[in-house]
Amino acid sequence: MYPATSPLLTDLYQLNMVQAYLDHGQMDTAVFEFFVRRLPARRGFLMAAGLEQAIDFLENLQFSSEEIDWLRKNYRFTDGFLDYLARLRFTGDVDAMPEGTIFFASEPIIRVTAPLPEAQLVETRLINILHFQSVVASKAARMVLAAPGKQLIDFGLRRAHGAEAGLMAARASYLAGFDGTATVLARENFGIPVFGTMAHSFIQAHDDETSAFFEFARSRPDNLVLLIDTYDTEAAARKVVTLAPRLKKEGIAVRGVRLDSGDLIVLSKAVRRILDDGGLHDVTIFASGGLDEDELAKLMDANAPIDGFGIGTSLTTSSDAPAFDCAYKLQEYAGIARRKRSVGKATWPGRKQVWRSFGDDGGMIGDVLALDHDRQAGEPLLVPVMRHGRRLAAPSTLADIRKRAAQGLAQLPWSLRHLSDGTTLPVTVAPGLIALAEEVDRRCAAMM
Amino acid sequence: MYPATSPLLTDLYQLNMVQAYLDHGQMDTAVFEFFVRRLPARRGFLMAAGLEQAIDFLENLQFSSEEIDWLRKNYRFTDGFLDYLARLRFTGDVDAMPEGTIFFASEPIIRVTAPLPEAQLVETRLINILHFQSVVASKAARMVLAAPGKQLIDFGLRRAHGAEAGLMAARASYLAGFDGTATVLARENFGIPVFGTMAHSFIQAHDDETSAFFEFARSRPDNLVLLIDTYDTEAAARKVVTLAPRLKKEGIAVRGVRLDSGDLIVLSKAVRRILDDGGLHDVTIFASGGLDEDELAKLMDANAPIDGFGIGTSLTTSSDAPAFDCAYKLQEYAGIARRKRSVGKATWPGRKQVWRSFGDDGGMIGDVLALDHDRQAGEPLLVPVMRHGRRLAAPSTLADIRKRAAQGLAQLPWSLRHLSDGTTLPVTVAPGLIALAEEVDRRCAAMM
Repeated sequence: MYPATSPLLTDLYQLNMVQAYLDHGQMDTAVFEFFVRRLPARRGFLMAAGLEQAIDFLENLQFSSEEIDWLRKNYRFTDGFLDYLARLRFTGDVDAMPEGTIFFASEPIIRVTAPLPEAQLVETRLINILHFQSVVASKAARMVLAAPGKQLIDFGLRRAHGAEAGLMAARASYLAGFDGTATVLARENFGIPVFGTMAHSFIQAHDDETSAFFEFARSRPDNLVLLIDTYDTEAAARKVVTLAPRLKKEGIAVRGVRLDSGDLIVLSKAVRRILDDGGLHDVTIFASGGLDEDELAKLMDANAPIDGFGIGTSLTTSSDAPAFDCAYKLQEYAGIARRKRSVGKATWPGRKQVWRSFGDDGGMIGDVLALDHDRQAGEPLLVPVMRHGRRLAAPSTLADIRKRAAQGLAQLPWSLRHLSDGTTLPVTVAPGLIALAEEVDRRCAAMM
Repeated sequence: MYPATSPLLTDLYQLNMVQAYLDHGQMDTAVFEFFVRRLPARRGFLMAAGLEQAIDFLENLQFSSEEIDWLRKNYRFTDGFLDYLARLRFTGDVDAMPEGTIFFASEPIIRVTAPLPEAQLVETRLINILHFQSVVASKAARMVLAAPGKQLIDFGLRRAHGAEAGLMAARASYLAGFDGTATVLARENFGIPVFGTMAHSFIQAHDDETSAFFEFARSRPDNLVLLIDTYDTEAAARKVVTLAPRLKKEGIAVRGVRLDSGDLIVLSKAVRRILDDGGLHDVTIFASGGLDEDELAKLMDANAPIDGFGIGTSLTTSSDAPAFDCAYKLQEYAGIARRKRSVGKATWPGRKQVWRSFGDDGGMIGDVLALDHDRQAGEPLLVPVMRHGRRLAAPSTLADIRKRAAQGLAQLPWSLRHLSDGTTLPVTVAPGLIALAEEVDRRCAAMM
């Protein structure tokens, strides 16, 4: 039994292919790029995330002697292959879009340049890392756009797909602009602010709601948020009005109340009135319970007096688009551009760069997908990250990544900032890249 | 930095509530149940999975002294609370549906009976474990029903939500009836058969397809499956016809070809004809590429001559229903039944059991949800699993779980075996449970 992060967490075919590459001396430099083929329905842009963990994975990739022995015992691999694996370290180069960068269909967000067996072997876990965090960051970005100025907290650990997903969703949503998470471990591992209130079970475990509020307040007086929807939301709000002055005498401030069910527009307005009538103007209203960006937009449109939102399942599972149609494809081997031509899955060959242009107001105008050496107008989005298996710079801080993400969202055209369906930014393919694709096709046709 | 499986992988409010429980001596026995409130759209049944990992989690739950120190440094908890956490072991009882059991809305699949702080503290990770594996097993079961007699392999690690999700999806799909996975680590950790072919990059890294096939065959002659859709599928099938006899002379048998794109009905028929005309009747056709249970059903309806399927993203992310509307709710505390009454989220109070009735032909007729002591006709589905924090029996083998799953699927009514939308099995609420719910409501009303 090895941990889920063992290098044996890979597809068997990667090992099979590397054995065959070694047998036939295919150790030349390969260039793979990872990109999303098509945007999911209703999505106009995506946000890159997970690079930090991807680089960690590449820097620390190593098979233990136990893992090598396990492979020897269970598969017919050659000793040469197993020796290669035992000595394997990632020695390649990585160019990538920094985390928090907005990207579109067909644009590589990472390029791996390495001896073919290395670049091949890292495929499965590299996708596993980059895809999921980009899925969550892209979903979180929609929520950030839908509820400007509101506090947004990740509540989704429980229904995330496993431990790593829960933890990484906290990171990906925070870098996209969330204010924090409920997941305690995200504070230790990533320095993310952690928030917590109380559950219905706490209220239910008491014979009456007011006692539950009192006992909780006395035990956890900091940032006190009381959950008021267990039985009757408006009745509970009136109880808060009664107990707040009594708690104040004990030096305890009620900071907020939380609604987790019912018609949040109606209830938040009723509760706001009850709190205001009771003089509790400073007590905020926090809402949760099955929210997504569409619900947030509805609540904003209705001017629901809600100050912050806890968002769970729809965020950490990216419920409308739990996966992207993405691929990590060989674009060049031994100096020759390659292209997959499978029906509906053709890719642009060669080492590529993405160039982004901005208007006078700083807004994005469009991107150009071009060969790496084919300079275009605008800013290049892929930057050098690793050379010869080593990081080029200390990791970006989450604070810096959040700034980049916020800037990118602010630069989106109006329609993309307002979650309009069916619009995206134009990605132009440079003439040089089109010419190369045609050349690769002619070469392939000649071979067949 | 702690691993994702640290006990700090929890919601902050769990720690806050436990501090408050300790402060006020709320250490009595609590009963929590985990259930799905509503079936996802188009789903008529679900399949329970993940119990083995849930029990492991409960048996091994323990805070390290470093984790306690971290909590002391970062939060204002009392020494009494931190001492409690440092000594904490799970001492409670667990009753659960065995893995592979079919279940329906409102039916508890696990019941935790423990001192309130313990039962509360385990909530987040317990849901995180049980929910995800049940999501994948339920999705996999639909694929098993859609393609009877076909080989089904999990190809979904790369787009699963992180490392643990990829590994556990291999387990959950296998127990639901899949034949294996591409994920190498699943063989070591769970004894699951692992399958692997080759990727397009392997073909692309060679100057011609035939050389690629030859080199791969010589390096990995066992269970040889050649990927034939990189350039022109039918042309590649003809190459296989040419090279198969040459490989045979070297003692290498081509076992199959894989299609990963295009119109699989048209292509599989064309390829079957080419293989048969070339005398390769024993060479099987394996298909992959964006498949889900609806695609499988279409391919079966069209009699596509495909022998096996590799299923990735739709399986490991459960793309149509990446999350269930599920909850882990307090049903009893200190001997008194409890009930949450939030709008749209009311729960049935008390310790419950699910009784399943079968017809003369062995098929499921319906379930009854009743209080634990209220014996009904049929078979009780929840069985004792842990007592006083200890397992009652060795874990079920995956082989046993697969038998249970297969039997459950065979016992489903016809409409549920055929993925008809909008049908499910009736779950009757026993009169005793209805009476208790009314009593709890009267008690709450009197309190307010």
